[in-house]
Amino acid sequence: NILFIIENKKEIKNKNIKVYVASLDELNNKYDLHGKINNIMTMYMFKLNNYTEKEINKFKELISKTYESKGTSVVENNINAIDEALEYLEAVNNSIFKIEEDPLKEKNITETMLCLDGNDLKVSDFLEHKDGTFEGGSAASDKRKISSKVPKWIKENCIQCNQCSFVCPHACIRPFSITDNELMMAGIDKVETIESMGEINKNFYISVSEANCTGCGLCINACPGKNQEKAIEFGEYSDRFDKISDRLYKNQENTTPFNKYTVKGIGFEKPYFEFSGACAGCGEAGYIKILTELYGKNMVIANATGCSSIYGGSLPLTPYKIPWMNSLFEDNAEFGFGIHMSYKTMREKIKKLMYKYKDEVSEEIKATFKEWIDNMEDDDLTFAVKEKLEKENIPDEIKELIDYIPSRKVWIIGGDGWAYDIGYGGLDHVLHSNENINIMVLDTEVYSNTGGQKSKSTRVGGVAEFASSGKFESKKDLFRIAMSIPNVYVASISMGANPMQTLKAMKEAYEHDGPSLIIAYSPCIEQGIYGGLTNSLEEQKMLVNVGYNILMRYNPEEDKLTVDSKEPDFDSYDAVFRRELRYKNLEFKNEEDYQALYDKNLNDAKNRYNYFKDLEAK
Amino acid sequence: NILFIIENKKEIKNKNIKVYVASLDELNNKYDLHGKINNIMTMYMFKLNNYTEKEINKFKELISKTYESKGTSVVENNINAIDEALEYLEAVNNSIFKIEEDPLKEKNITETMLCLDGNDLKVSDFLEHKDGTFEGGSAASDKRKISSKVPKWIKENCIQCNQCSFVCPHACIRPFSITDNELMMAGIDKVETIESMGEINKNFYISVSEANCTGCGLCINACPGKNQEKAIEFGEYSDRFDKISDRLYKNQENTTPFNKYTVKGIGFEKPYFEFSGACAGCGEAGYIKILTELYGKNMVIANATGCSSIYGGSLPLTPYKIPWMNSLFEDNAEFGFGIHMSYKTMREKIKKLMYKYKDEVSEEIKATFKEWIDNMEDDDLTFAVKEKLEKENIPDEIKELIDYIPSRKVWIIGGDGWAYDIGYGGLDHVLHSNENINIMVLDTEVYSNTGGQKSKSTRVGGVAEFASSGKFESKKDLFRIAMSIPNVYVASISMGANPMQTLKAMKEAYEHDGPSLIIAYSPCIEQGIYGGLTNSLEEQKMLVNVGYNILMRYNPEEDKLTVDSKEPDFDSYDAVFRRELRYKNLEFKNEEDYQALYDKNLNDAKNRYNYFKDLEAK
Repeated sequence: NILFIIENKKEIKNKNIKVYVASLDELNNKYDLHGKINNIMTMYMFKLNNYTEKEINKFKELISKTYESKGTSVVENNINAIDEALEYLEAVNNSIFKIEEDPLKEKNITETMLCLDGNDLKVSDFLEHKDGTFEGGSAASDKRKISSKVPKWIKENCIQCNQCSFVCPHACIRPFSITDNELMMAGIDKVETIESMGEINKNFYISVSEANCTGCGLCINACPGKNQEKAIEFGEYSDRFDKISDRLYKNQENTTPFNKYTVKGIGFEKPYFEFSGACAGCGEAGYIKILTELYGKNMVIANATGCSSIYGGSLPLTPYKIPWMNSLFEDNAEFGFGIHMSYKTMREKIKKLMYKYKDEVSEEIKATFKEWIDNMEDDDLTFAVKEKLEKENIPDEIKELIDYIPSRKVWIIGGDGWAYDIGYGGLDHVLHSNENINIMVLDTEVYSNTGGQKSKSTRVGGVAEFASSGKFESKKDLFRIAMSIPNVYVASISMGANPMQTLKAMKEAYEHDGPSLIIAYSPCIEQGIYGGLTNSLEEQKMLVNVGYNILMRYNPEEDKLTVDSKEPDFDSYDAVFRRELRYKNLEFKNEEDYQALYDKNLNDAKNRYNYFKDLEAK
Repeated sequence: NILFIIENKKEIKNKNIKVYVASLDELNNKYDLHGKINNIMTMYMFKLNNYTEKEINKFKELISKTYESKGTSVVENNINAIDEALEYLEAVNNSIFKIEEDPLKEKNITETMLCLDGNDLKVSDFLEHKDGTFEGGSAASDKRKISSKVPKWIKENCIQCNQCSFVCPHACIRPFSITDNELMMAGIDKVETIESMGEINKNFYISVSEANCTGCGLCINACPGKNQEKAIEFGEYSDRFDKISDRLYKNQENTTPFNKYTVKGIGFEKPYFEFSGACAGCGEAGYIKILTELYGKNMVIANATGCSSIYGGSLPLTPYKIPWMNSLFEDNAEFGFGIHMSYKTMREKIKKLMYKYKDEVSEEIKATFKEWIDNMEDDDLTFAVKEKLEKENIPDEIKELIDYIPSRKVWIIGGDGWAYDIGYGGLDHVLHSNENINIMVLDTEVYSNTGGQKSKSTRVGGVAEFASSGKFESKKDLFRIAMSIPNVYVASISMGANPMQTLKAMKEAYEHDGPSLIIAYSPCIEQGIYGGLTNSLEEQKMLVNVGYNILMRYNPEEDKLTVDSKEPDFDSYDAVFRRELRYKNLEFKNEEDYQALYDKNLNDAKNRYNYFKDLEAK
């Protein structure tokens, strides 16, 4: 199954290039490499170029030195892996590179880019995109199949809790409560379902978009199962199940039969952000997915530059099915604020026009105008009004503005590098605006996208670029700062630690009439969680339990702070420093200051908890 | 005494231009115009161009409408003034414009610009300034004589309190405690002095740089006098007294015989910021002047763009005699931070070099090295070390860095437009740095330099550009935000309300080992204080008394907040809205919301006071 694009095949033929393949899954699992095969590839390069044994031994010494700080097992695993790697290297017979002719079909820009022929595009090809907009949701048309193992549903063990779906960052696994008839209409037959709990005469089914799954395993780790048996386990890719998911997902609607602010309820809601290019197990993407399940239809997103703008907007494939925009790193808050203000202004204009024309339209339309004016912020009603007015004979001046009839809420999203540092001036400006606007910070406590530089969100003792001996300054307390600004709702959440608190915070932020700020703690590969991101749910629970993270909500209308997390077990705080490489490495990087930085990190956590508990008690 | 530059004289001759003069002091005083003669000038233009009576009446209607919101007396005064203005207009006989020949003397850049011949400068003339530096302190060489009335000292009424000197924003009036011999050495004789209180065998004398005085009158208002008689009153300019000030100021030193952290003591300190182009009575410049009296020798200033960069750095004349720099509006905090870091790095380098060469230098130099290393932050000692090492034979590597031997502290200075808005991202960054760096915000609660736009420091109800119906949002609480950042010293001061608290805060900020932030309340013409800035001392006292401003100091080392101002008399809060046009205008601009905005402004003040009093009590 070696796939090459046509141009490459020609090149291989013409230049008589030798091609090798190596199937490294086995080695990857055996030596716990987490897909990091850079040393193996270097080894191949050495071998194929006839480097001497002495040179290869030098390379091994380098590996030992490089990974020293990560522990002896990492060193040994890498050495063993390169020793055995040669057994997996296979030469490919060049005759398999048959060259098909280019199909004559005219390709659009997206298709051209997908074929890696982007360099051939002309400037004039972009004329239809001159305002910078591209079609959304195209990621679904790609079938990456990047994981050799994908989740399989074992219906017998399922309690229909939908936690698997909740935690999936890529929206690959989704529950359905569906009738036989609906299944048939979607062209799906012979699918094994169970009886839906809570809905009469409906079938419950867990579908997996297997081709889009990244194999992170969060769904499996989240699954409580039945009698200690998981309801999801890894298995091999199957076209059949993938196709079922295609059919089900295409027609999905926002019509959960349950309260959408529960893990069970939200599972049945359609996500407007699916199959992004985020890392397997990304701690950020899950928050965005949930948000679009809750409010997708009415959302407009302004996205700061960073990881979330890369997996959110990498042409040619886009994961968003709703208006989503990215301007710069430094101006995202202002950018979102401008979108909000322009939308607000246009709607005020419509309101004036409705008064102006109220006696020139039919009684029915006049009543619709009134209904809209009285409920301008009602999500469903304003959508319905738009649909209704589109069919009616209304004044041109209003017709031109009809896209502004539905209520839309701007969400300003970005990472901690943006929110705490580079875009903070704008964030502060928006928080002081008293406008009804929402902000979500995906806080990985480090610049993730650029490779792990310290940000003002990085904690004391954290090892990062520009803080290679551990950061000396404390983390900036964005929660506390935001609380001091009039009429700002603030929440700190950690979806793996407490899903219900996450949903409650999102609801309150959305409903608050004024600026809201959600600080969403986001596990990230840069943190070096022991065992990788597949363990990030457990990790999030631990971080809350030991007092590293505090889950809180602040409601400015009542000046009320609620600390949602329990009294921490600070005695177990060392788990943070044992289980995350960013802290574990500190011992190697800065032995001298290790204890002092550890103590400061712990004391910061203690002081912070006491500060907020005191405030809550007032 | 009509002064014209040569080019203008030629033009007048050649084109036979008619020239008129009008001496408007009398009219200005009679109708309380505060120097605003724009309407009178318009009237002259109308008259000289033979506008009709009808047209002039239209103009009067316009005046009535324009000043309506400022009250009937302002309208009447302006109308009366233009009616009487023609009596003051005099034609000038062209024959007085004798043309002297250009002196052949080579002029430097500064002189060329002073002659308004800047356009003739070549790019190559700037080669010696290619790094952007210009000579400091040149403002003293100008003699603007812009005020028709200047302060005169009445020694019989003087109690030697030095308050006149403390409040002068332009450093024009200064006390001296001086011996007969010192006076003689300075070439000053026949000056009438009184016996110095507190110093034996010394004379006390108040000197005024009359040619640099702007006539704001703050010194007179500050003077407590004796038996209800002021020790300063306005009189006519005299060359003799101005020359005395030149001689005294030139040789002034930082050698106050008293505690410099008292109003009396600081008066004898040399200011390193004098005769700036700030407005008469400017509420900002006074703070800078005081700061340079306290720390001038060791200061480096990074100045944000705004009023303070204009009066602080308008070529050709510069008021600073110490290193002062201006980069941009938005990057000033980062700019100052960079200066601090580079200075710190160079001194660390010196330290290493001293260790490297310690056994290659004489025992005496080795001891000096040690002394320096042990006292690197001692202002006087490190200056002395530099002087000493300059004379010695020290390694070249150290000699090259000798300018970094003296301890220097970076002060980052700017207005509220910078600190609260445009430069806030950087300010936040520096406050989180835990570096020993000082910040002073000159808070006029509005963008002053650009003509009065609202900033996040403007309070609710304040009328400003972009808030012509009064601002709807509350003032950003920079004090509270800064307090929430680890190890940041914060103070809010108002020098007219409480000079001793101002000095105490500056001392504590300077001595704090970490970032410090002083928020200095600054009266400004944009606020429209009743009667003008000459009343700003009284106004500052009122604003504190009624609870509009709270004077506070927060010491992070002890986590201790001190509220220095007394329990406010909130019942008298309406004085703010009666006495300042920015609030008084609200009634005219937005009658509908006036009461609500007034109440919110008052409630913000009450809530803020209660919040900080609670915190102080903890």
